[in-house]
Amino acid sequence: MLRDVYVIGIGQTPIGEWWDKGLRLLGFEALKAAIADSGIEKPDALFVGNMLAERLSSQAHLGPLLADFAGWRGIEAATVEAACASGGAAFQAGVRAIASGMAETVVALGVEKMTDGMGDGSILSGLATAADADYEIMHGVTFVALNALMMQAYMREYKVPHENFAPFSVNAHQNAVNNPNAMFRKEITVEKYLNATMISPPINLLDSSPICDGAAAVVLASGDALRNLPDAARIKVLASASATDSVSLAERHKLLEAEAIKASADKAYAMAKLKPDDIDVFELHDAFSIMAALSLEGCGFAAPGHGTDMACDGEIALGGRIPVCTMGGLKARGHPVGATGVYEIVDVITQLRGAAAANQVKDAAIGMSQNIGGTGATVVTHIFAREG
Amino acid sequence: MLRDVYVIGIGQTPIGEWWDKGLRLLGFEALKAAIADSGIEKPDALFVGNMLAERLSSQAHLGPLLADFAGWRGIEAATVEAACASGGAAFQAGVRAIASGMAETVVALGVEKMTDGMGDGSILSGLATAADADYEIMHGVTFVALNALMMQAYMREYKVPHENFAPFSVNAHQNAVNNPNAMFRKEITVEKYLNATMISPPINLLDSSPICDGAAAVVLASGDALRNLPDAARIKVLASASATDSVSLAERHKLLEAEAIKASADKAYAMAKLKPDDIDVFELHDAFSIMAALSLEGCGFAAPGHGTDMACDGEIALGGRIPVCTMGGLKARGHPVGATGVYEIVDVITQLRGAAAANQVKDAAIGMSQNIGGTGATVVTHIFAREG
Repeated sequence: MLRDVYVIGIGQTPIGEWWDKGLRLLGFEALKAAIADSGIEKPDALFVGNMLAERLSSQAHLGPLLADFAGWRGIEAATVEAACASGGAAFQAGVRAIASGMAETVVALGVEKMTDGMGDGSILSGLATAADADYEIMHGVTFVALNALMMQAYMREYKVPHENFAPFSVNAHQNAVNNPNAMFRKEITVEKYLNATMISPPINLLDSSPICDGAAAVVLASGDALRNLPDAARIKVLASASATDSVSLAERHKLLEAEAIKASADKAYAMAKLKPDDIDVFELHDAFSIMAALSLEGCGFAAPGHGTDMACDGEIALGGRIPVCTMGGLKARGHPVGATGVYEIVDVITQLRGAAAANQVKDAAIGMSQNIGGTGATVVTHIFAREG
Repeated sequence: MLRDVYVIGIGQTPIGEWWDKGLRLLGFEALKAAIADSGIEKPDALFVGNMLAERLSSQAHLGPLLADFAGWRGIEAATVEAACASGGAAFQAGVRAIASGMAETVVALGVEKMTDGMGDGSILSGLATAADADYEIMHGVTFVALNALMMQAYMREYKVPHENFAPFSVNAHQNAVNNPNAMFRKEITVEKYLNATMISPPINLLDSSPICDGAAAVVLASGDALRNLPDAARIKVLASASATDSVSLAERHKLLEAEAIKASADKAYAMAKLKPDDIDVFELHDAFSIMAALSLEGCGFAAPGHGTDMACDGEIALGGRIPVCTMGGLKARGHPVGATGVYEIVDVITQLRGAAAANQVKDAAIGMSQNIGGTGATVVTHIFAREG
């Protein structure tokens, strides 16, 4: 990065089933909150992370639609799509607009409206577009079934029982209780997890993140722009890194070594000149509990096959070695797919600002977010540091 | 831009109705051609311009899908969407990846498969997602009808007869004859234009670009990367600029002053330190002939209401003051929507390399491309210069 990039504003809507709000209003609420938090009036550019609007809301072209509705008509705006990693990829586009010297302030917005679609097709066929249409979906597999295949292989290969995944969901729900923006603000027990409705074996309802609506936004600024904003909260972007893998699971080199998770994290560590031990808080992508385990392993927090051990040993809790899903994660805060990457960043920034209240990770100075698209085909990793 | 960015490779498929080829194969053919032309083996990142795959091919997540199929598994990849300006916006993402110091080589690919969709919905409802779903499309207007409204207003306001638009289509078809990648390689006459089937008055079949399939790709490199590529053709990116307007026509400040066209062009001229007179060749966005007139006016080549005069006076021909659509434009080369912005850039680069054969614009040294999304809600303008 040829210039320093800072996060100076965050905003979000509560995640839920917003039957009375469309994409435009959800996106606007997050933009309004983030811009008010930042102290600027209007950014130079807007990048929108979204996956499903074209199918479910019959609305492409969200960049100008939301820029205009926010009162910023004329600014540059575009949508960035990388399935469920769209939010992280939109944030990365914002980082580059500033780092390239082509913008001073940018807003990255993630917005998704998964309920109440007016467009063609169901939410399940929409989510399936994250997988390989020709080699996977055409043959009848759903997106959750692809994750179930990975989880089955994991349990068999590493001899891990299903109950060892329970602590991921228990931790996420516990942390969501104190997050007013979370969808499921209630604790669950291991017993409830083990008895949850089966969806696609071994994935049950409490292994899965919900179908929901929400929007989150982040305001980025250059160091130069910050000179005019002496009061702005400033969190520095230390690393912004993406990597990819085959979209189709069958084409992976090894089913349980998510190469893009590792490549993206390694690139981020190298950019930030940090190692896993330096990370104080980690917002990972627990779309299904299996992805939480693979993320911890790929990022170097646990050896292959030992991601669930970390969860079972309490290392992922707020007071643990590497707290994850500190505001509820995808499981309990919610997973409005194209918005999730920005929610993860909002949660990391909240921690680094020391603003997480009852969920505050003590002395959190360095935070990481990781946004995963498909079954690991796109992975976007960001590392942030509190300044001063 | 904090670093210089060059175009070192171009590739394209012929545009047409490719009933035997899907997105993956079309995209791959363009990538293969561009990378062979560039002299590099693998880029650091791939940005895909696409609008309709999620609806028509039930395939999102094109970044990793195409990176993997090209043999580049692991590299960063994402899709950029801005309706019909997706290709230009993807190219701009590539410019920034390099200008920010975060990549040395990048491929921008535009790919669209409009025929033979396996997904939900028709091509017309797909194209309509470029407009405002709530305020335009819900009420029954189609995308061509929105353009027809602009053309009606133009003809009435400026007292311009329909036949004055004919030279745009005649010029485009004439230039397409010599382009082996063009969809319609045949000349048309003013008489044929005037008698063409009416679609949405006053727009007839020969005012309109076709529904088609195609892919085009461009390889970008930093100045540092070029030091290892002494034989690479090098065209410098002088400017990369975007602007937006309301998506809905009814919300525009003035219907016939496309503010985003002007804002985007003015920003590009300022970045390049050039004025309209300096441009030798201009690949504009003639999705409908009305857009060609508005583009010439907004970019400062003609006064408001006089865009068609330029066409009638032969100033847009290959030997004219400002040649446009030199390889056939959207009208006759073809308009595979999300790919078009990259095709425009490929055509400009072809001219600046002096490789346009029978269609070569004499002494072309500075070229401009302008990619328009919706009825002018997103406009992306690029200016290029031949080096040496």
